[in-house]
Amino acid sequence: MKILLTNDDGINAKGLYSLRERIKEIADVVVVAPESEQSAVGHAITLSDPLRVREVERNGEFFGYAVNGTPADCVKIAVRAILKTPPDLVISGINLGANIATNVIYSGTISAATEGTILGIPSIAVSLATFVNPDFTAAASFAKRLALSIYEKNLPDGTLLNVNIPNLPEEKIKGVVFTRQGISRFREEFDKRTDPRGHIYYWQGGEMLFCDEGNDADCGVIRNDMISITPIHFDLTDYKFLDELKNGNWKLFSG
Amino acid sequence: MKILLTNDDGINAKGLYSLRERIKEIADVVVVAPESEQSAVGHAITLSDPLRVREVERNGEFFGYAVNGTPADCVKIAVRAILKTPPDLVISGINLGANIATNVIYSGTISAATEGTILGIPSIAVSLATFVNPDFTAAASFAKRLALSIYEKNLPDGTLLNVNIPNLPEEKIKGVVFTRQGISRFREEFDKRTDPRGHIYYWQGGEMLFCDEGNDADCGVIRNDMISITPIHFDLTDYKFLDELKNGNWKLFSG
Repeated sequence: MKILLTNDDGINAKGLYSLRERIKEIADVVVVAPESEQSAVGHAITLSDPLRVREVERNGEFFGYAVNGTPADCVKIAVRAILKTPPDLVISGINLGANIATNVIYSGTISAATEGTILGIPSIAVSLATFVNPDFTAAASFAKRLALSIYEKNLPDGTLLNVNIPNLPEEKIKGVVFTRQGISRFREEFDKRTDPRGHIYYWQGGEMLFCDEGNDADCGVIRNDMISITPIHFDLTDYKFLDELKNGNWKLFSG
Repeated sequence: MKILLTNDDGINAKGLYSLRERIKEIADVVVVAPESEQSAVGHAITLSDPLRVREVERNGEFFGYAVNGTPADCVKIAVRAILKTPPDLVISGINLGANIATNVIYSGTISAATEGTILGIPSIAVSLATFVNPDFTAAASFAKRLALSIYEKNLPDGTLLNVNIPNLPEEKIKGVVFTRQGISRFREEFDKRTDPRGHIYYWQGGEMLFCDEGNDADCGVIRNDMISITPIHFDLTDYKFLDELKNGNWKLFSG
């Protein structure tokens, strides 16, 4: 089995290192990851700048390839230019911080897995639901187990798994739940400042005010010390409203 | 009615200008758009750099605000920092080039409308299905008509309309069809080059090999000289596979 690892926290991130340590026990591992942190890049790809690939060492030995691009760029260039044959699986992670609810659409971690899926390769995104004192041990073990399981059972075309794991030792994790993407609400804020030259600028920020507490939603499940697995696809059509439109009285055009 | 206009081709794009000319006939218009072209940025937001807002003139009069960020940044900063009250509608466009099928997930045009939707504002993305010899006249007229229609009838929470318009005079457009996001296949390619200093770099490119010809798909409808309107939401859950997972034999965890 050959597994491509990537992330959005950058090639030097601890979560990627922990993941590689466990995954190399079961597969030939290739790391192709962004040179720098790429959080909240969404599903960006780099068309207007050249991409460069650089070999990176960690602890004195070859670790992987760094790309001056986004997570989606990394997966594309890995599959189409770096690797001789496509990998059997793409794992993106382990992200520092949950990728749940509306955050999913901003996530570079998920966009790498989406790109894998578009290229026809089974793909998963793995995130650790904390920003402080991360312990990637349980998450890396679970990723390994899930990788073996997917290798055996495969995934439907066009669908990836978005996995969020609580920041707990393995024995304290209470189970695994298949979930839907939760509903959330944010408070956006722009911190307005003046630079030393007298010009105004803004820092973008905000916080999640509310996240779905449903037992079947990613946020609710994580909060209850369980692993959440949400199957995600990229057909964004709202079929329910499409039916309403087709049967409705939206007369917009008399041509 | 107050309408926020933005795009991903940048504040100097012709499609945005044409759109503003027609929309200002029916509403107070505010333009907040990226300073530079932001194609294929996906749903990126800028967290690691400061955002700056600059007033821009076109033809000697005030045109709008340029932001050194992505389309999603523009909508967020417009609603949360520039405008005193939220707009009644967000229109993103008119994009030069169709946003259909898998391209939807890379689209900055759509990400701006998505951001509007997240902020609770009815939103539409409008694209002209050509890269050569664009004539935005019919598209701008249709956007105006659609804006009036949405103001009257509203849209469901969390759903935007992705509108693609053929590059034809109004009288040659054969109708309007409510569609699903089509299925497409790409050929990705990386053009490998050596720079003057002897270092290797890559240009990312590719082309759509195949796009859904279904009468109910965005690509198929555009090809038949009709306007395609696809309702899009951002719950990415694959509910069909979620049901299979819930009822299936995916035993991944024995905790």
